[in-house]
Amino acid sequence: MQVFALPKTLAVSAALLISSSYVIAQPKLLTEKELKQVETVRQTAMNSNLGYEILESLTTEVGPRMAGTPQDTLAVNWAVDKFKELGFDKVWKEPVTYDTWVRGVETAEVIAPYPQQLHITALGGSVSTPDGGITAPLIHFAHLDDLKKADPSMVKGKIVFISYRMERTKNGAGYGKAVAARSTGAVEAAKKGAVGVIIRSIGTDTHRLPHTGIMRYQDGIIQIPAAALSNPDADQLVRIFSRNKPVSIKFELGAKPAGEFTSHNVIGEITGSQSPEEVVIMGGHLDSWDLGTGAVDDGAGVALTMAAAKLIKDSGVKPKRTIRVILWANEEQGLKGARAYAEAHKHELAQHIIGAESDFGAGRVYEFHSLVTEKDMPFIDQMEAMFAPIGIKRGHNKAGPGPDLIPLYGLGMSVFRLAQDGSDYFDLHHTADDTLDKVDPKALAQNVAAYSVYSLMMAQYNGDLARPKQDKK
Amino acid sequence: MQVFALPKTLAVSAALLISSSYVIAQPKLLTEKELKQVETVRQTAMNSNLGYEILESLTTEVGPRMAGTPQDTLAVNWAVDKFKELGFDKVWKEPVTYDTWVRGVETAEVIAPYPQQLHITALGGSVSTPDGGITAPLIHFAHLDDLKKADPSMVKGKIVFISYRMERTKNGAGYGKAVAARSTGAVEAAKKGAVGVIIRSIGTDTHRLPHTGIMRYQDGIIQIPAAALSNPDADQLVRIFSRNKPVSIKFELGAKPAGEFTSHNVIGEITGSQSPEEVVIMGGHLDSWDLGTGAVDDGAGVALTMAAAKLIKDSGVKPKRTIRVILWANEEQGLKGARAYAEAHKHELAQHIIGAESDFGAGRVYEFHSLVTEKDMPFIDQMEAMFAPIGIKRGHNKAGPGPDLIPLYGLGMSVFRLAQDGSDYFDLHHTADDTLDKVDPKALAQNVAAYSVYSLMMAQYNGDLARPKQDKK
Repeated sequence: MQVFALPKTLAVSAALLISSSYVIAQPKLLTEKELKQVETVRQTAMNSNLGYEILESLTTEVGPRMAGTPQDTLAVNWAVDKFKELGFDKVWKEPVTYDTWVRGVETAEVIAPYPQQLHITALGGSVSTPDGGITAPLIHFAHLDDLKKADPSMVKGKIVFISYRMERTKNGAGYGKAVAARSTGAVEAAKKGAVGVIIRSIGTDTHRLPHTGIMRYQDGIIQIPAAALSNPDADQLVRIFSRNKPVSIKFELGAKPAGEFTSHNVIGEITGSQSPEEVVIMGGHLDSWDLGTGAVDDGAGVALTMAAAKLIKDSGVKPKRTIRVILWANEEQGLKGARAYAEAHKHELAQHIIGAESDFGAGRVYEFHSLVTEKDMPFIDQMEAMFAPIGIKRGHNKAGPGPDLIPLYGLGMSVFRLAQDGSDYFDLHHTADDTLDKVDPKALAQNVAAYSVYSLMMAQYNGDLARPKQDKK
Repeated sequence: MQVFALPKTLAVSAALLISSSYVIAQPKLLTEKELKQVETVRQTAMNSNLGYEILESLTTEVGPRMAGTPQDTLAVNWAVDKFKELGFDKVWKEPVTYDTWVRGVETAEVIAPYPQQLHITALGGSVSTPDGGITAPLIHFAHLDDLKKADPSMVKGKIVFISYRMERTKNGAGYGKAVAARSTGAVEAAKKGAVGVIIRSIGTDTHRLPHTGIMRYQDGIIQIPAAALSNPDADQLVRIFSRNKPVSIKFELGAKPAGEFTSHNVIGEITGSQSPEEVVIMGGHLDSWDLGTGAVDDGAGVALTMAAAKLIKDSGVKPKRTIRVILWANEEQGLKGARAYAEAHKHELAQHIIGAESDFGAGRVYEFHSLVTEKDMPFIDQMEAMFAPIGIKRGHNKAGPGPDLIPLYGLGMSVFRLAQDGSDYFDLHHTADDTLDKVDPKALAQNVAAYSVYSLMMAQYNGDLARPKQDKK
């Protein structure tokens, strides 16, 4: 039987030589014993509260940890201590330097026709208003595109209000459609002569807690202050505009740049037993915005990947490859830690086998996506079987990177995606409401299980997990 | 047949003479025609958006309207104008004078062991802290009763934190169990030498929007500043205390008294066609707290009772008694309008047939409660039949007054209660989140229908609706 099978095997190998960019030995799937180990770790993780305990520690003992604040440093120290306390084989930090920004006062009120307070927050990176604020007529656009089309004479000297409401979706697709108003609203408004911009928060909730988030200026375009209104406040302005009376508001922001700061990516490893130089990456970002305690963004990602690695370590299994947990610095203000990591490790890229970041809250993982060549598909079949019992279905083979993996992905590293139910994520994202009470410990444990399956299986598998050619940059 | 029936009728009358405290003609039930009219108005109300439109107008064009602020006056003017616009037969206002209070700055932060901001709001009536705030050790009590039992030496010089969490209930029963910490916490803490008190908000939500509400000082007890933390902030403090390290906080309140102010109860009537001097009362309170726009507390009560009377008027039915809608001034800071109304009308009490106030949000009415003698029970049977089709069941015959009916109830007036589903009411109550988007227009329309049934039936019935003897004060 084996003899007769030989020509067929050769044919398959020949096909692989054509279809794959690598000439390697056929990868070995995980053994029954190894799969049993994965199942054991998975089950332990499902029943463990460790992820929640780590998250509770971070959000309580550090709390808000905006990049460049004293709590940024506290968070780095917390992470080093926590990795050590958990018994990681190797713990270190790598410097990340960036320009910082602070918030300051932020107030707004309707001056006419119906005087009342508004709840706003400065967008990250915004300049301040003059002391005492700006009072000006408000002009309403239903969408950023309407602003772009507007006659500048209508906008000049006014404050621009963009009222587009983000859609709620499971996979977060609504965010992409809405976020340009935040990132580029100030530039587009300034181009038309506006003196300020106030957008409806990029968020799906109905609470008077505005959503912050990074915005950008553009060289050569005057920098005007930019803020977000809570959803109920935006609703209120729309209603006020419906009365067809001139609307004017006053708003004041004390936001400003605050100098250069050096923080750190914090890294912990479970060192591989056979190929320690080959690393499987997972992690989240350690910084948060200042308004909340960063429980879902991204304390959850930090805590659940730390817990997943720790539970693998505790299981007694010796992963062949190294499992590296990276807690990136300053994701929120421009992937600063991610870029620093990629720069520092660009010569070791071939040893970075694959990466997965958790940065979409603490909702259950419902689907996984791979990005591998045909030769690794039998292994993905194995993963499918390991994920199925915890409610995770197989998705597509076009996985994209989490934000902090963008630089490594750009350099050619493959990525893996554990898609979470983010239906409620944008209720909390970048608001004061991003606090521990919003996290379901059971859902978090399922995430820990998912990342333990991902990282252990990737570490045990000997395939190179290279990206399909057409997806490589 | 009539002759033979006579002795039986006499027997029934004799029984009534014994069981009832009034010797009057047997009340006449509503005729079939009158019941049809009630059904028509009810159906119109269920399909009308008028209540929501009035509420939208009040919350948009006036917005927050705390007693004593310029918006208090705007609200009074709005109400007079709205009653007139709606075509009420008679519209007037009655003066109400009270001492006022303003909020000012309110900030709080944990100083040790884990520095971070807290979200607080001053309780209504609180004194200010010194400029720059108070920094002191924080002492945690799980309940007001624990504070009462505490050794003063443990409390002296500290800020008291009471973390009791209000329970969510349909009928609001959780409020009564929790609210003493708000109303008397400052007095109890000051008795033990505390320098300030911070309570967990009396509310059921999980958002970082603290709940204000009135508090009281006591003669002879030093007045200390009092504030409420949002639920997530209180959770955070409890977690911080669980680390068994000394906790200290700083908080600053700029709250202070702001002099005497005269506002008005605003009253609109549909004048009775047969007994115009007899009035059936309904209404809500016109003031709100300053943090939100008072949509559920109590814009809803204002709007839905105005709408109910207006729809009766529009139906063409001429109610026999007068239907009087009262929009009371300054309920929040001590039933000031209600007391003024009762004082001004105490000599007309016999003509105040019955009252019902809507002051529990905009949730659906699920039950009604009466407070009548046996002779009026056949009429209550008629009401039961009219309420049933809109999902309102018959409750008990021990109705209590809404807050603004307490003074009239105290003078002996009967009351009627339309019990609302308040499951979500204390998520919003006295917070910035009390905004129009929280109101379901369909549920509000059902309330309008309920109050139209109540007021029209009470106006058409000729029974005196006196209270049972044992319930009279």
